[in-house]
Amino acid sequence: MNYPGGIKKQTKHEVSYSNRGMSLEADINETNLYYRNNDIAIIYKKPTPITVSRVDYHSRIDAVIREAYYKTPSTTDYNGIYKGRYIDFEAKETRYKTRFPLSNIHSHQIKHLEDIRRHGGIGFLIVRFSTLNLTYLLDGSKLQAFLTNTNRKSIPVSFFEKEGFLIKEKYTPRLDYLSVLDEIYFKGEAL
Amino acid sequence: MNYPGGIKKQTKHEVSYSNRGMSLEADINETNLYYRNNDIAIIYKKPTPITVSRVDYHSRIDAVIREAYYKTPSTTDYNGIYKGRYIDFEAKETRYKTRFPLSNIHSHQIKHLEDIRRHGGIGFLIVRFSTLNLTYLLDGSKLQAFLTNTNRKSIPVSFFEKEGFLIKEKYTPRLDYLSVLDEIYFKGEAL
Repeated sequence: MNYPGGIKKQTKHEVSYSNRGMSLEADINETNLYYRNNDIAIIYKKPTPITVSRVDYHSRIDAVIREAYYKTPSTTDYNGIYKGRYIDFEAKETRYKTRFPLSNIHSHQIKHLEDIRRHGGIGFLIVRFSTLNLTYLLDGSKLQAFLTNTNRKSIPVSFFEKEGFLIKEKYTPRLDYLSVLDEIYFKGEAL
Repeated sequence: MNYPGGIKKQTKHEVSYSNRGMSLEADINETNLYYRNNDIAIIYKKPTPITVSRVDYHSRIDAVIREAYYKTPSTTDYNGIYKGRYIDFEAKETRYKTRFPLSNIHSHQIKHLEDIRRHGGIGFLIVRFSTLNLTYLLDGSKLQAFLTNTNRKSIPVSFFEKEGFLIKEKYTPRLDYLSVLDEIYFKGEAL
């Protein structure tokens, strides 16, 4: 920082992993890779659904897709298994500081999370307020309660503070969201 | 069928659902839709993984992918939840009558099925011998035993007959593979 008169203010170097320009998706992918490499959980991001209209190819190996379109996903982006339980979640970032607009999630993704919970799986949202540098895990039960009790079009950040869990960012794994599930679902179980 | 002299042979009309030209993938997708609509299980096919190289767009809505390539999948094609358990499988068709070549499955897909089983999930293969009109479910434990005990490059159909389960084709659901899992994993449980 340059001050008038050429004086430079010495600022303490703060290690903020969130500021390294990694997207939430990159953080989660890196975390899932860590979980898999350490045999903690088997969780993957699903590929983006695409409708292919035209393909050029001589053989199956060298096929080039020449025309294709993004489809609306039917489900959430991430699923897998942890401690024998089916895990399913959607991850979203918002630049808003006070609320998370529900328009960021498709209604069939919300229904999907409800379906998963009804069948005995663990479903949740990970929401990053990127301007605040805060990432929350909100369990599906709390999301469902919010949607049942209000008609609001966004979830206020205060709801995340009260009903969600802050996911601390670390060097490795980047975003240890399974430690939050341990807190909610596996407390008292032998690790 | 036209015989010499214009005689038409009356053939008995046999209902063979396998012969209606539906691929195994179409059968499984239809079955999964039935399971979801009847709230029996929540199982989806994952989208085909594609690397997008070039996109034309004015806005996010009208994006057209102009250059993209098929990627090798990291995992199996299908996963979801049934009776609280994590379900994961790969489905393959072969025209061979006596064996299923293991080259049809990527080695990391086999590893993935092992990972899933180690973490408490249910992993298996569905293999259709399309020329024989027979579709088998082979549990991951049997696949693993086969791979451990032999160096063969294909699984003989006799192994499927002995260690697998024949999935009967019906009108609806087309391919009731969950009834096989009931037999293997949920026997004696209240339905």
